[in-house]
Amino acid sequence: MEPGDSNSAAGGKTQSASAPPVEGVAGGGTSYGWVDGGLRGTSLGAGVIDHTKVHSEDLLHVWSMPSTANVSQQEAPRPLEKVNLLAARNERESFQIALRPKVSWSTSGIAGSVQIQCTDLCSSSGDRLVVDQSITLRRVVPILGVPDALVPIDPLSPQISLYPGETAAVWVSLNVPCGQPPGLYEGEIFITAVKTELDSRTESLPKSERYRLYRELRSCLDITEPRDYSSPEEMVQRLTSASTTLRRMLDNPALQDCQESNGFGDMMDEDVMNNVSVRLKLSLTVWDFTLPVTPSLPAVFGISETVIEDRFCLEHGTEGWYDALDHHFRWLLQFRISPFFCRWGDSMRILAYTCPWPADHPKANEYYSDPRLAAYAVPYAPILSCTDAAKNSLRREVEILKSKPHWSKAYFYLWDEPLNVEQYDMICNISNELRSYSPDVRILTTYYCGPSGSELAPSTFEAFVKVPNVLRPHTQIFCTSEWVLGTREDLVKDIVAELRPDLGEEWWTYVCMGPSDPQPNWHLGMRGTQHRAVMWRVWKEGGTGFLYWGTNCYEKAMIPSAEICFRRGLPPGDGVLFYPGEVFSSSHEPVASTRLERILSGMQDIEYLKLYSSRYGREEGLALLEKTGMYLGPDRYTLDHGPVDVMRGEVYRSCRS
Amino acid sequence: MEPGDSNSAAGGKTQSASAPPVEGVAGGGTSYGWVDGGLRGTSLGAGVIDHTKVHSEDLLHVWSMPSTANVSQQEAPRPLEKVNLLAARNERESFQIALRPKVSWSTSGIAGSVQIQCTDLCSSSGDRLVVDQSITLRRVVPILGVPDALVPIDPLSPQISLYPGETAAVWVSLNVPCGQPPGLYEGEIFITAVKTELDSRTESLPKSERYRLYRELRSCLDITEPRDYSSPEEMVQRLTSASTTLRRMLDNPALQDCQESNGFGDMMDEDVMNNVSVRLKLSLTVWDFTLPVTPSLPAVFGISETVIEDRFCLEHGTEGWYDALDHHFRWLLQFRISPFFCRWGDSMRILAYTCPWPADHPKANEYYSDPRLAAYAVPYAPILSCTDAAKNSLRREVEILKSKPHWSKAYFYLWDEPLNVEQYDMICNISNELRSYSPDVRILTTYYCGPSGSELAPSTFEAFVKVPNVLRPHTQIFCTSEWVLGTREDLVKDIVAELRPDLGEEWWTYVCMGPSDPQPNWHLGMRGTQHRAVMWRVWKEGGTGFLYWGTNCYEKAMIPSAEICFRRGLPPGDGVLFYPGEVFSSSHEPVASTRLERILSGMQDIEYLKLYSSRYGREEGLALLEKTGMYLGPDRYTLDHGPVDVMRGEVYRSCRS
Repeated sequence: MEPGDSNSAAGGKTQSASAPPVEGVAGGGTSYGWVDGGLRGTSLGAGVIDHTKVHSEDLLHVWSMPSTANVSQQEAPRPLEKVNLLAARNERESFQIALRPKVSWSTSGIAGSVQIQCTDLCSSSGDRLVVDQSITLRRVVPILGVPDALVPIDPLSPQISLYPGETAAVWVSLNVPCGQPPGLYEGEIFITAVKTELDSRTESLPKSERYRLYRELRSCLDITEPRDYSSPEEMVQRLTSASTTLRRMLDNPALQDCQESNGFGDMMDEDVMNNVSVRLKLSLTVWDFTLPVTPSLPAVFGISETVIEDRFCLEHGTEGWYDALDHHFRWLLQFRISPFFCRWGDSMRILAYTCPWPADHPKANEYYSDPRLAAYAVPYAPILSCTDAAKNSLRREVEILKSKPHWSKAYFYLWDEPLNVEQYDMICNISNELRSYSPDVRILTTYYCGPSGSELAPSTFEAFVKVPNVLRPHTQIFCTSEWVLGTREDLVKDIVAELRPDLGEEWWTYVCMGPSDPQPNWHLGMRGTQHRAVMWRVWKEGGTGFLYWGTNCYEKAMIPSAEICFRRGLPPGDGVLFYPGEVFSSSHEPVASTRLERILSGMQDIEYLKLYSSRYGREEGLALLEKTGMYLGPDRYTLDHGPVDVMRGEVYRSCRS
Repeated sequence: MEPGDSNSAAGGKTQSASAPPVEGVAGGGTSYGWVDGGLRGTSLGAGVIDHTKVHSEDLLHVWSMPSTANVSQQEAPRPLEKVNLLAARNERESFQIALRPKVSWSTSGIAGSVQIQCTDLCSSSGDRLVVDQSITLRRVVPILGVPDALVPIDPLSPQISLYPGETAAVWVSLNVPCGQPPGLYEGEIFITAVKTELDSRTESLPKSERYRLYRELRSCLDITEPRDYSSPEEMVQRLTSASTTLRRMLDNPALQDCQESNGFGDMMDEDVMNNVSVRLKLSLTVWDFTLPVTPSLPAVFGISETVIEDRFCLEHGTEGWYDALDHHFRWLLQFRISPFFCRWGDSMRILAYTCPWPADHPKANEYYSDPRLAAYAVPYAPILSCTDAAKNSLRREVEILKSKPHWSKAYFYLWDEPLNVEQYDMICNISNELRSYSPDVRILTTYYCGPSGSELAPSTFEAFVKVPNVLRPHTQIFCTSEWVLGTREDLVKDIVAELRPDLGEEWWTYVCMGPSDPQPNWHLGMRGTQHRAVMWRVWKEGGTGFLYWGTNCYEKAMIPSAEICFRRGLPPGDGVLFYPGEVFSSSHEPVASTRLERILSGMQDIEYLKLYSSRYGREEGLALLEKTGMYLGPDRYTLDHGPVDVMRGEVYRSCRS
């Protein structure tokens, strides 16, 4: 045996460190009973657990988690503590309730079901935040194993199933209306172990029993059915016979509990909740700041019209198609997002439009003047077919829109990431056309490099920085990929130095496939603060708008409830911020991702930072980011939630009137 | 900007390789519609899917996987192919059916339910393997995210739920009885999308409806109840009135389907299955080899009696306690395992016993002479309290047992991994006592090093190898940890060289915390072939027995259905090969892990290899392992299933009569 092997093959110090496990007291960490289950007494016994008699605290762990936590199925329990939240008016603040069974109390293959009931939140002056209107519950469903989809819980039957050895999470959102009086609102969430519907199967009438009942009722009716009776004796016999049949039916085991109970057995009564429910106390401070209805920073997000057409089997231009687009538009507005529909042509030509109706349609005005919309894309129709009709129609659109007050929100998005001089020329040609209709049109161009084939600059970064020189006056919104910056925040000044704000030029940014971890982005599997930090980054770098390419760009499918597949070659979650509701239930309502909620939170954070800066100056705002440890740079931001609440609390304390 | 940054911050070749994604045709792998859903036509439409009219193939992916595959929730679909299996008589052969929804057809929060129905397997000569007796279905349930627990599927309602974006697996086992005639058995498994019980909620009678029905039946009975009638008219009126009530009851919407159907609506009719089910064809070759009822290699596995006492709230020595132990003993026998119950004392003293009853109890003879039991542990009672009574009782036990034919299977397991001279002395003292009762007692001692504090040998490995010199004649079964060998198979000869087979000395091995990946062991998260290879290793190294410390050594709990926690400090799954059934359903039957099934498969492989070697010699047996690529060494064995079937097929071809 070689000397070098003695360590790996046997004994000595190495060995006693990795001594095999033992069960006895001598075994230290491996010894039996090391972790105590923490069960109250031994009241549960060895039989089937009667959840109505046992405190839910003995059946499951309940604890709260912040909205930036990715609560995985393996998440370990923590102590249950009161949840204290802060929110402005017109703000949504969310947190999560994590649930993990300690034991199984169901007999149908799951650990058990829990009912989650929330009280209204009430202030001492009698104001309320009402459950289901202002308080919503959603189940956090894993996508590719990562907690992401937020599937609404039916308010009429607010139950979820728990599985053995798995932590589940419920996403609780509090939506504070614009007119909500400031104050401290308090309420409770009752979490109660219940029987599942499958467990109570024996209590409901199975099909075979219903057939029996049906047959007996029919035969009873045959007996009593009016006819010509031969004698009173026959009638007595018939009545007796019917009575016998009826008594047999009443003896049906499935009806036995009906005679004992008052008929309201399904309702959970307040006493029961007080006695057996886990109670999560919740307090929300609503303060006297109202988030502006129109987001301070326009964030324009794409919705693929082709994906909607395919998945929902809708023909372009039909009533159903308009309804579907309308539904998506309205639904996305709640996230402080300005949606645009889009369709890609060849060579990254793009047709982007916020409103599917023409400018002279009443819906167009409704869309464009919606105060929640911070920016809107005007369709450049000739991008699809460059006919005279298309050009005329475009001219008419601009004519109508440019006279409206909302025209300042309008932009054209013509080309996604032009790469060469030929594509730059196309943009310039279109720009010339558009500016002939209205000299103040705003054209948005996304890019991450300079045009290839030009001698713009000696280095690729310089070529990128000099793009405004090439696209002026054909682009007003220079929208660059955060990926180009990498972790070099200092490069921002090089980009901005090339812009002419005096000509109305703006710098916007975007993320998509890049940047990747550890920088902020919205890919599945990134940390929650990493998702939220995309908007922190935007605010710190000083861009005045943001673009995201797609919110519903999953793989092609021709059925609403088809499995959601991410597109090949893209990081999971890229281009997908919500899911079709049909995949998870019979609902047609889109299902938000946790990432979309974190985008909303980031957009709200921007309003806090803007408020603070408006009082104390931008330098102080930047200092606040730094001193709370919330965001210092693209690779230096908080991984935990704490600093987020510290920042928000500081803005509250220093800006409340 | 520094030169070193130019690559990360911008442009050039690097950049075009990681160009952001696009939706158009130009986007290559990221382009829209790249992966086609593979749906048959567009028959599904945009509405709620009627699963009875749509072929299940359009609703879900079905494919088979070998028993050594860990089918995760993210497992990607494969084509469905016929399953061809080979099994001897008295053998269990298993495979898995993987299922993944293509769409959601349920409306209750899951993608949908599937029914899995298996036909009997029939041979052309009319012999059968009968469903539920010889063919069983179990759901593969993740433990810590790893597919491991095999929860039986109710044969009366063989349904499982599928979740959006998740692959589920069903473990199918074919148990070939000893007397099964050899031949080719064929059958089919029908996988059919069905409504869930929750979906059909409206079809069953909800509680409120049952109350209504109950009240109406009662009032109808009040009408017909025999009494003194004043007149025939009253009777007519009563009959009429009863009829009216009965007709109203028959109009109850919940009973409407009863009049249309034949009363067998719950049964899936063969036509339906033929038309809409996915059919998995299954063929099993049963060959004319019968695995010996008594395993050729004794594999002794511990069951913690303390864990059973705690979890099932049983007092030591009560009737329930004996029942529980008996239940565990019988259940484990099916895995070609020889169980022993155990309890640890101080300093790794161990009380190990196979039968909880004394030797003069009828049950003792039943246990010890069970042909499936290859070895049994005789309790050395004085290990707990060294009283005269204990010593006398022990002497009586040995007196009785040594006269029985099964005495050759007996062994004493006194101490787990003695570490120092003092502990060695204890073993020698006990041995002296035992040998005074019967000179041919066999004592098993586990160890992974030589005694500390002795001058046995200059190196730790040599001290380990020389242990037999210290323990002779006080140990006959020298049971060493595979961890000591590491990947050095050649060290086996050093161990074996020290043994005296002429004195009945044997070499056994064990695994526990070590060895770790990539060597074979039974930890959760290892590959399936890695689990199965533990027994391949034993056979190749030539040990004549095997020991495993614990099968049920999860963390302490005082409730049968309490969450299963692995003990701290142990690799997940170590010491836990099955789970309490109560965690997953109302069943009291233990739930096997996939690892336990793979242990059985490995034990069965040993019988194949032994048969082959008995015909062609051990060298040829070793050559078979090598040429099939199944097992070459502790870090060189197949990761895929293929070679396992090749080895088995080769044994079949060359050994069938």
